[in-house]
Amino acid sequence: MASGERKFHPVKSSEQLADYIIQEGLIKLRNPHINEKDEDVLYHIALSNKSHDLKEMFQDIKFVCFGGSPTRMQKFAEYLVTELKVKIPAGQTLSNIAQGSDRYVLYKVGPVLSVSHGMGIPSLSIIFHEIVKLIYHAGCSDVIFFRIGTSGGLGLEPGSVVITDKAVDGLLRPYMELSTLGMVLQHPSNLDQEVTEELLALADPEKDGYSTSVGKTMCTLDFYEGQARLDGAFCDYNESDKMSFLSRVYSRGIRNIEMESLCFAAYCYRAGLRGRAVVCVTLLDRLKGDQITTPHEIMEEWQSRPQKLVCAYIKRKLGIE
Amino acid sequence: MASGERKFHPVKSSEQLADYIIQEGLIKLRNPHINEKDEDVLYHIALSNKSHDLKEMFQDIKFVCFGGSPTRMQKFAEYLVTELKVKIPAGQTLSNIAQGSDRYVLYKVGPVLSVSHGMGIPSLSIIFHEIVKLIYHAGCSDVIFFRIGTSGGLGLEPGSVVITDKAVDGLLRPYMELSTLGMVLQHPSNLDQEVTEELLALADPEKDGYSTSVGKTMCTLDFYEGQARLDGAFCDYNESDKMSFLSRVYSRGIRNIEMESLCFAAYCYRAGLRGRAVVCVTLLDRLKGDQITTPHEIMEEWQSRPQKLVCAYIKRKLGIE
Repeated sequence: MASGERKFHPVKSSEQLADYIIQEGLIKLRNPHINEKDEDVLYHIALSNKSHDLKEMFQDIKFVCFGGSPTRMQKFAEYLVTELKVKIPAGQTLSNIAQGSDRYVLYKVGPVLSVSHGMGIPSLSIIFHEIVKLIYHAGCSDVIFFRIGTSGGLGLEPGSVVITDKAVDGLLRPYMELSTLGMVLQHPSNLDQEVTEELLALADPEKDGYSTSVGKTMCTLDFYEGQARLDGAFCDYNESDKMSFLSRVYSRGIRNIEMESLCFAAYCYRAGLRGRAVVCVTLLDRLKGDQITTPHEIMEEWQSRPQKLVCAYIKRKLGIE
Repeated sequence: MASGERKFHPVKSSEQLADYIIQEGLIKLRNPHINEKDEDVLYHIALSNKSHDLKEMFQDIKFVCFGGSPTRMQKFAEYLVTELKVKIPAGQTLSNIAQGSDRYVLYKVGPVLSVSHGMGIPSLSIIFHEIVKLIYHAGCSDVIFFRIGTSGGLGLEPGSVVITDKAVDGLLRPYMELSTLGMVLQHPSNLDQEVTEELLALADPEKDGYSTSVGKTMCTLDFYEGQARLDGAFCDYNESDKMSFLSRVYSRGIRNIEMESLCFAAYCYRAGLRGRAVVCVTLLDRLKGDQITTPHEIMEEWQSRPQKLVCAYIKRKLGIE
């Protein structure tokens, strides 16, 4: 087997690495090794900077919208075609750019990418790395990242929309921990107050018929025990323990629980993306139950609510009425 | 908002909870709350014990095979139809049982379930909870669980197969940590030596044309930095740091790296499943590189190797020549 050279190599800090690319508005790639490579394969979306002209394909991207479900992100792309008045020539249709892989879907509608990220932090993490490299290779500038998703709510009417103020983990810590070469590194999960406020200003509870509010989001590694559910395959606590925990996190400002916001926020911040936001609909009130039993059609409409808000934001930025 | 009652409730230990169901061979459901519920919705596979007759649908299941990619698990199901000589009537075809959801795929071929789990521990965790409840509701007995997947190898020819001896995390710890109601619980990731040895005995390197061996598997929360890759969107270490780390884990017995084995092993053990194994093919040798650039057709053949081994095991158990 090969053995690593054991001599001392001073490692640059994240901030120093960021200086490899200092061009106003361009995404920072905090990895000096990428430019030393002949080819950069974006394996999980079946693209590469050698086999594809990423600049030609993606240079006009200004917004990247991530969401868990591939079907939902396809529907969002179709919704954007109408809303952004994007012309698709007769005989053509939207096509999943990542169809060479079955891991994620990737649609482009004008200046917007609609991308699925699967479920949980590791699944989001993979596609996030590859999308950041994609927009770096494409030379995009001033890109805003959104996660539009679903969540369990706390003390909110089901169907309410929550814009994340701060993403925290299951112990309420505002950073993501990642084991890296034997060290546990902490990546702070800051979000962007400006985008949050602009999004909130676009919501109109009376006209919408549902509430949109700003709150803290708890991001867990598990859907059942990690979110204090009583209905998983394993459970060694009871209703009272569950309610005690959920009431305590509610009193600390948590308004919804999901499984990706922490990594999304931490990686956006690391990538130097100034514009970034997490917008989720709540599918149930976890202070009242665990199981999601709402009829499919109602759920479909609820899931479109974060999409509508983010679409309204994009239209405002693009000057589309 | 509702507020939890704060009075003291003694919680039963996992072992006590297991006693709720003591029937030889039947899967243990370590959650006493499930039987108190009118309906148990398996949300992410769009099934329920009220809307479906799970006993009629699934009682004959003896093997559950998990793998990351939906397409690969569909192909495995199709392969099993031929190998297990399962008769599908004219005018019928295999159908994804979980098609009411787009999160996972679920195929049934005779006594085998072929299930996709997406990427990473949280994504596997959700489907694992729901499959364990499924086979509990169905009253299945003596079920053996497999994960058949892909991985990065260490010091092995690409295309080699590794049967996991022990699953460890990115810090080489043999347990999965999960934040549960504010406590960080550790779930040991023991695997089954008997199944491992039976699998190994079915491999024949000379006839197969590739090696199959037993080794430790490192399970990470991230594909790039978590696995010491130099080609992610972020990287603050260099080639020498990477090689030092990978060489050190190699010398501690790690032969491949992937993203689900720790949770799979820990949850099988918790569920009291005596038969359980992780079989992965290595797509590259991480001591020689980071990127996966092998042509698609070769990769397809490699990915079928764990499937062939597990299928041979199933045929042996079912007495099919």
